[in-house]
Amino acid sequence: MASSQNLSFVLQKPGEVKYEDRPVPEVKDPHDVIVNVKYTGICGSDVHYWTHGSIGAFIVRSPMVLGHESSGIITATGSAVTSVSVGDCVALEPGIPCRRCVRCKDGKYNLCPEMAFAATPPFDGTLARFYRLPDDFCYKLPQGMSLEEGALVEPTSVAVHVVRQASVKPGQQVVVWGAGPVGLLCCAVARAFGASKIVSVDINEERLQFAQKYAATHVFRAQKESASESAARLVRDCGLGVGADVGIDATGAEPCIQTALHALRVGGTYVQAGMDKPEITWSIGAMCAKELNVKGSFRYSSGDYQLAVTMIANGSVPVKELISGKVPFDSAELAFQDVRDGKGIKTLIEGVKD
Amino acid sequence: MASSQNLSFVLQKPGEVKYEDRPVPEVKDPHDVIVNVKYTGICGSDVHYWTHGSIGAFIVRSPMVLGHESSGIITATGSAVTSVSVGDCVALEPGIPCRRCVRCKDGKYNLCPEMAFAATPPFDGTLARFYRLPDDFCYKLPQGMSLEEGALVEPTSVAVHVVRQASVKPGQQVVVWGAGPVGLLCCAVARAFGASKIVSVDINEERLQFAQKYAATHVFRAQKESASESAARLVRDCGLGVGADVGIDATGAEPCIQTALHALRVGGTYVQAGMDKPEITWSIGAMCAKELNVKGSFRYSSGDYQLAVTMIANGSVPVKELISGKVPFDSAELAFQDVRDGKGIKTLIEGVKD
Amino acid sequence: MASSQNLSFVLQKPGEVKYEDRPVPEVKDPHDVIVNVKYTGICGSDVHYWTHGSIGAFIVRSPMVLGHESSGIITATGSAVTSVSVGDCVALEPGIPCRRCVRCKDGKYNLCPEMAFAATPPFDGTLARFYRLPDDFCYKLPQGMSLEEGALVEPTSVAVHVVRQASVKPGQQVVVWGAGPVGLLCCAVARAFGASKIVSVDINEERLQFAQKYAATHVFRAQKESASESAARLVRDCGLGVGADVGIDATGAEPCIQTALHALRVGGTYVQAGMDKPEITWSIGAMCAKELNVKGSFRYSSGDYQLAVTMIANGSVPVKELISGKVPFDSAELAFQDVRDGKGIKTLIEGVKD
Amino acid sequence: MASSQNLSFVLQKPGEVKYEDRPVPEVKDPHDVIVNVKYTGICGSDVHYWTHGSIGAFIVRSPMVLGHESSGIITATGSAVTSVSVGDCVALEPGIPCRRCVRCKDGKYNLCPEMAFAATPPFDGTLARFYRLPDDFCYKLPQGMSLEEGALVEPTSVAVHVVRQASVKPGQQVVVWGAGPVGLLCCAVARAFGASKIVSVDINEERLQFAQKYAATHVFRAQKESASESAARLVRDCGLGVGADVGIDATGAEPCIQTALHALRVGGTYVQAGMDKPEITWSIGAMCAKELNVKGSFRYSSGDYQLAVTMIANGSVPVKELISGKVPFDSAELAFQDVRDGKGIKTLIEGVKD
Repeated sequence: MASSQNLSFVLQKPGEVKYEDRPVPEVKDPHDVIVNVKYTGICGSDVHYWTHGSIGAFIVRSPMVLGHESSGIITATGSAVTSVSVGDCVALEPGIPCRRCVRCKDGKYNLCPEMAFAATPPFDGTLARFYRLPDDFCYKLPQGMSLEEGALVEPTSVAVHVVRQASVKPGQQVVVWGAGPVGLLCCAVARAFGASKIVSVDINEERLQFAQKYAATHVFRAQKESASESAARLVRDCGLGVGADVGIDATGAEPCIQTALHALRVGGTYVQAGMDKPEITWSIGAMCAKELNVKGSFRYSSGDYQLAVTMIANGSVPVKELISGKVPFDSAELAFQDVRDGKGIKTLIEGVKD
Repeated sequence: MASSQNLSFVLQKPGEVKYEDRPVPEVKDPHDVIVNVKYTGICGSDVHYWTHGSIGAFIVRSPMVLGHESSGIITATGSAVTSVSVGDCVALEPGIPCRRCVRCKDGKYNLCPEMAFAATPPFDGTLARFYRLPDDFCYKLPQGMSLEEGALVEPTSVAVHVVRQASVKPGQQVVVWGAGPVGLLCCAVARAFGASKIVSVDINEERLQFAQKYAATHVFRAQKESASESAARLVRDCGLGVGADVGIDATGAEPCIQTALHALRVGGTYVQAGMDKPEITWSIGAMCAKELNVKGSFRYSSGDYQLAVTMIANGSVPVKELISGKVPFDSAELAFQDVRDGKGIKTLIEGVKD
Repeated sequence: MASSQNLSFVLQKPGEVKYEDRPVPEVKDPHDVIVNVKYTGICGSDVHYWTHGSIGAFIVRSPMVLGHESSGIITATGSAVTSVSVGDCVALEPGIPCRRCVRCKDGKYNLCPEMAFAATPPFDGTLARFYRLPDDFCYKLPQGMSLEEGALVEPTSVAVHVVRQASVKPGQQVVVWGAGPVGLLCCAVARAFGASKIVSVDINEERLQFAQKYAATHVFRAQKESASESAARLVRDCGLGVGADVGIDATGAEPCIQTALHALRVGGTYVQAGMDKPEITWSIGAMCAKELNVKGSFRYSSGDYQLAVTMIANGSVPVKELISGKVPFDSAELAFQDVRDGKGIKTLIEGVKD
Repeated sequence: MASSQNLSFVLQKPGEVKYEDRPVPEVKDPHDVIVNVKYTGICGSDVHYWTHGSIGAFIVRSPMVLGHESSGIITATGSAVTSVSVGDCVALEPGIPCRRCVRCKDGKYNLCPEMAFAATPPFDGTLARFYRLPDDFCYKLPQGMSLEEGALVEPTSVAVHVVRQASVKPGQQVVVWGAGPVGLLCCAVARAFGASKIVSVDINEERLQFAQKYAATHVFRAQKESASESAARLVRDCGLGVGADVGIDATGAEPCIQTALHALRVGGTYVQAGMDKPEITWSIGAMCAKELNVKGSFRYSSGDYQLAVTMIANGSVPVKELISGKVPFDSAELAFQDVRDGKGIKTLIEGVKD
């Protein structure tokens, strides 16, 4: 597929995508950079827009470029840019906050109400030949880190934020429900944070085998049983003693969430990393009597992206083995189908061929 | 009623109490003190044992002295006691932890699994002429603080722990659901912690009027409406802008809890202070998207009792106006009936007459 | 003195100031506002530039407008401004960070290396008829708060930052060395944060009398004696038991700093709020054996200004009594002389007469 | 040397030690255990008592058994002991706090004023055939962890406490002055906490070579130069950019401390791990302008010992290579001489031969 300008992969309406050759973005602000996108990963939320055209209150009302997990090479820089140069390989942080509100100033820009996030309507995403963003949201890849790995910085940052929300500390016992990309990365990041026991929980044996090789010290196969039974079995089989220090749910599934509250020790911490139903049955009695700390985790914020880059580059969070396939830009929809069908772990979409 | 020894108010089985003249406790450990109990308040959990004979897994299997909110005068001290003396007026902290486990050493003795808590089976409570406890769980009342106020240290400590769990900071907007004793004290403690706006929420107009005079800057009357409607009305009527910084539920009631999650700002904090049903419907979507901090609060821990004494003594948390009545020791059951019937705020039971 | 444009009070070189009628600033960025400055306070650093032309590495190399503690009335707003309107009375936060660096994103914009701070060379200050700044650094004064009080928001924010650095908590014992404006405000803010004992230390009896009436619960007059003797006397005379929880030095004087380290309890916290000599003799042995927490405090950061406005407006930090005089704009130098000579507490310079 | 009872290595007065066959300790409290000591390491403070008979206010006034870095095998347990059994290999935590004071309850028992610490006068140390302590200060060695490694838990705990005081976080740049046992262990623990760059600084090339192989990512040889020059060279040579996130001094030497303050970035953290002179010249100007966090570190507290055991056992903090020699119990003084003369890294003293 030829692109004389800025070939883009555009969602028209639920289930319907097409390629458009849009104008090439130009430097507008002195801090802008233009990036030639090289690799883009796809996650569940991309697929949800593709299939449903909305996530909660975010509704695709006009055609929107998809994609937000990208790496690329800088092709132009504004006059004030000093941190990166044309030719640099970078990972793109895809959400630009207002920089002015209370949340931004408080170091929590992920909670900025004015956030402009790639491929969250009405903002176009990164599945295009070129993409413009401010230099401070571009992260130069250290020597030895590939552009493929660069596309994995986004989901790694999600996991970094989750593990930071959970305040995972060296020596702790961490249980992660769900062995998909985010769950696996939570295991790897928890290990890099010094957790001494990391249990990956899933219903799929194959995924658990991968988790065990990848980053978990223990795996646990969830079955049809009550939350308290599953929790008791998990604690016993994995030798968690009085319970897990930290529980992370990367599934959004009600039974997992319920099991997690029961599997935690008194004073333990629970973080919700995946979303599904907006309301569930919740063991508030367990939360209260055990004085649990419970937190949501929303995207990533100050320092998360840089830490993800650092940990991938120094090998403490390996990501290459998560890349289960690559498709050319003109077959981008295949990557969406893979995620929808649970095929592989992470399929990357290559950039537009020059 | 004459007491030659240690007259005690003993729960025999649900709904059945009687007075027993038990042996006077003696100093066993060099750190022990013996206290002549002077005033005892009653709370919902006392009443629950009285009416049901159990709370969750804690079941009264043999006769148990009731009461755990007490003040008194020291009548004997062990050989190692130096912090208090015979004749001192003290508030009694009614739960003695093991001092040896991980939780105790970590500064969270309220989570000690070996906790011996007064009037939680199988441990006898404080509704007796004399009570024995270690000196470091006796808090000398500062000059000018009465024994009646001393009996209010316990519920004030509950509120201190809640407000600390909520990390209430100066200038914050705090909403407290429930205007019973704990809810009111949470308002007063939040104010003493520097909260600039304190909203008391209840369905009872009379209680709200008291709350307004007592410690709330705003009151809000909950009505039959959806959680999101109630939250929106609360935020609008009380001028909470983008939502409350902190929400505290002191009711345990599902509609209050649901409203609270919707009334918080992004990044806000929610603390569960009251318990009712062990499982409820929970807005995990709101928790996640707003990245809320959610915590249980269980009794009180390191420093809570001392801070409660300090704040009552220096007037920053007034408690006298919460005392709505007193009954003599031989009519102790009347105080239980008051709590059960929602009469008054806090009825104190006087000590055994000498 | 007539001002057809933007009359400004300009430091030419050490000790030499003159009035210049500079061009009126205009809205350049859509977020800019223009403020007609109404009151400006003067602090020690202003005076240091006036007398020495420099502070450390910051050297006045070309004429610079002085002043950074100001309030005023908005006269123009950019197209994107929604938080304030023409005619609003505001306090001006005088340092604008880059909003892009690691420190800014991390919620610590006071540490931004690109900070543009009013009256810190090469940036002009606020002692002019009009001043331009971004809307998010303007704080609307709540109803009932005067423009005079608005000029005191800046030093109050300094104190808020100090007290936050010290993590002052309800019930704590706080000692503040120095009863000048910042020391006094540290006392008041510590009280508003719930400190139960606040000791003001100075060598000047008159200042201590003011401190006692203003915000301190105790005062202590420092004398010629060793640091350990002074600390022991302070702890004994003020009933600090095992030592102060928090020590704040607002003098920069070596004997005060040394005394403070000795007066703290084990695990106590020390914050350096005032600066004088860059190197002093330091009791690292005491710091180590008592495992002290020691911090610098530099200007103010996220949330400090808003909290200062809130606490002044709701009366928890009163500032009117700190205003010891006012001088008209064309006698601005008198205010500098007052600070230099230690006359009064805070002399305000009125705005240019229209 | 035959021991029919409890052969002990006893300091008589400075420089004079002798062996005494004291009575075998017996279980007194139900929580007591008796340990047959197997290996004991020696540190600088042991040597200081041996050579000077005192450290600061702690003066050896009557004969005192030396030693506090020990492992051993349990030979008897009190009736309430359940966590360990006769025959278990354990590491001994050598300081028993009062469990009752504010510091103990607050989770900081290392600051307990009633601490009974082995080989700190007047308390006997562990260089004896048998030693008694409470079960909760005995840490069972996990399978695969040797008794030699068990003796290294004490200095590892010192390093754990230092690194926790420094709040070392994944991805940070940490500089450690001093490549002796504690400095080396601080490097290893910082690495286990996820620090991405760890610089070991020393004046001894041989030690630096060891540090580089052991746990540092970079080494830096300090020279005769000013603190600011040394800091500038360090930052440049080790690629620390705007400065180190964390500086740890494990030397107590004034030039190191001064260099550290200059080598830190704005907002950085400094921890004093080693002690020498009680007073030094301190760059309070740098501390203030960079708003540094500065902390002492004193022994170890809640959770430090357990984490040290866990990290040694799972290989994240290797300690075997630190053991540079072993001497039999009846040549114990040789180990003191090694430390005094800077020979090797850690010489262990074997237990009394049965």
